[in-house]
Amino acid sequence: MTAIETAPLAIHKGAEELPWVEIGDGNKLKVIMVDEGQGLWIVENIFQSGFDVLTHKHTGPVYGYTMSGAWKYKEYDYVNRAGSFLFEPAGSVHTLTCIENDTQVWFQMYGCNLNLDADGNIDSITDGAGTLAAYYALCEAQGLPRPNVVVR
Amino acid sequence: MTAIETAPLAIHKGAEELPWVEIGDGNKLKVIMVDEGQGLWIVENIFQSGFDVLTHKHTGPVYGYTMSGAWKYKEYDYVNRAGSFLFEPAGSVHTLTCIENDTQVWFQMYGCNLNLDADGNIDSITDGAGTLAAYYALCEAQGLPRPNVVVR
Amino acid sequence: MTAIETAPLAIHKGAEELPWVEIGDGNKLKVIMVDEGQGLWIVENIFQSGFDVLTHKHTGPVYGYTMSGAWKYKEYDYVNRAGSFLFEPAGSVHTLTCIENDTQVWFQMYGCNLNLDADGNIDSITDGAGTLAAYYALCEAQGLPRPNVVVR
Amino acid sequence: MTAIETAPLAIHKGAEELPWVEIGDGNKLKVIMVDEGQGLWIVENIFQSGFDVLTHKHTGPVYGYTMSGAWKYKEYDYVNRAGSFLFEPAGSVHTLTCIENDTQVWFQMYGCNLNLDADGNIDSITDGAGTLAAYYALCEAQGLPRPNVVVR
Repeated sequence: MTAIETAPLAIHKGAEELPWVEIGDGNKLKVIMVDEGQGLWIVENIFQSGFDVLTHKHTGPVYGYTMSGAWKYKEYDYVNRAGSFLFEPAGSVHTLTCIENDTQVWFQMYGCNLNLDADGNIDSITDGAGTLAAYYALCEAQGLPRPNVVVR
Repeated sequence: MTAIETAPLAIHKGAEELPWVEIGDGNKLKVIMVDEGQGLWIVENIFQSGFDVLTHKHTGPVYGYTMSGAWKYKEYDYVNRAGSFLFEPAGSVHTLTCIENDTQVWFQMYGCNLNLDADGNIDSITDGAGTLAAYYALCEAQGLPRPNVVVR
Repeated sequence: MTAIETAPLAIHKGAEELPWVEIGDGNKLKVIMVDEGQGLWIVENIFQSGFDVLTHKHTGPVYGYTMSGAWKYKEYDYVNRAGSFLFEPAGSVHTLTCIENDTQVWFQMYGCNLNLDADGNIDSITDGAGTLAAYYALCEAQGLPRPNVVVR
Repeated sequence: MTAIETAPLAIHKGAEELPWVEIGDGNKLKVIMVDEGQGLWIVENIFQSGFDVLTHKHTGPVYGYTMSGAWKYKEYDYVNRAGSFLFEPAGSVHTLTCIENDTQVWFQMYGCNLNLDADGNIDSITDGAGTLAAYYALCEAQGLPRPNVVVR
């Protein structure tokens, strides 16, 4: 066999391959890949205008790729729009708010979100393992078969 | 100062912030982020139909996010279209070919491309440091100021 | 210039180069490298018999290399001794206890420690940025010059 | 079940758990962990005085932890001894030479070694998948059972 035949395969997830689940008010979540041991989780979201994410601090780096719409962090002025790239270093803290309907974003995340209360104390955490479990449960609750997420 | 005020900042690159450089036949490149010591490089490409990339093997993982158009690896059947996610594990080998004009893709890459000849021997390599140098040189050749790539 | 002359340099920290700071009861800490944006922190410890670390959950992977002595996690039977390697995947939870005096261990850590109380709630966190700040402060308090930690 | 009971387990490899294989002239190799998709490989070596490794360039970062003995890169003056830490950024190029017998070192490596000839051209590569295959083959040739390497 040649090197190409024995090499590990690339894994493709087309836009329609994994279902969107509703997370309230028309906002949607898709979990694409989780490598729990590495602390890696890749999700895609569709946010509607006015949607807020809890203020959180990242324990690893995050890379954001925006497909459509507009969203920002309340702490910064710039707006993520179609074609925006965002690098969030580990330790960064911010509060996501969505500005336009049908804002679609991929987040490639390492580590977890430490969700902070108004005094900066940790209120809860959000991580890949928990988000994957929630995604599976929401799929089941919405009558969908268990999605074929890339799990390492 | 509060934790939020002292935290490292997220870095945003809007769609218009970094210039596209021409790499031949209407194909374009933008280098967004390079952390040379970590072996990380993030680029965005616009490919035209018929564009081929040399067969290559990756020494680290690659994550591909497609904005528009259509492209595939000659070795596989699936086609990357708008909204496609692709995970290419370290060690994977493939030959990119573009199917539709104005195909736009982000690649978040670790390590380098080992470019292979028809016998599977290493012909050359492509890496983040070299691609960044080429991007700076192409910007200069095209009369553009030095772009503000995210460099760690 | 040749490729070798322009390549980035490797960075060496000899055993005597960075000082040990006392963290109580003869236990010692040395911070060797911190890449805050990547969430990476590399420390070395000398623990004395009976030293316990708070039960914690990791948000990224940890790699442990033991030079001398003996230590274990209360949750597991195996004992880390000279020459032991330990892989702690992200999400793992455990309580370190030291068994022999002068146990010396390197930890290469990604993400943070979520320190848990008896009910499994997050009581506090320990991360690279905070540990580096503590190391600098302890050096100063012990009359040592600011150590030349590898900081990216 | 509690969070601790469902958490992923840490994996320990004691000093005696994985066999050393002879790689010539009393030099020895042990492969401890390989995550091929991530490009991660962790090995331990025992080198004898006078042992040289081919000049190579790394495509990812490398972290070296020295247990005993003495070794250096011909390009640099410093010597790695017991307790030394070494950070080799991606892109670094060097030629290892061993100075004292029974020099024992762990290397946590990402990506591959591009082995260079005297003109700086790539002569061959060494990577995690190939090194693991060689380790298995050498164990078999030396009449040892297949070692239980941490493979993800």
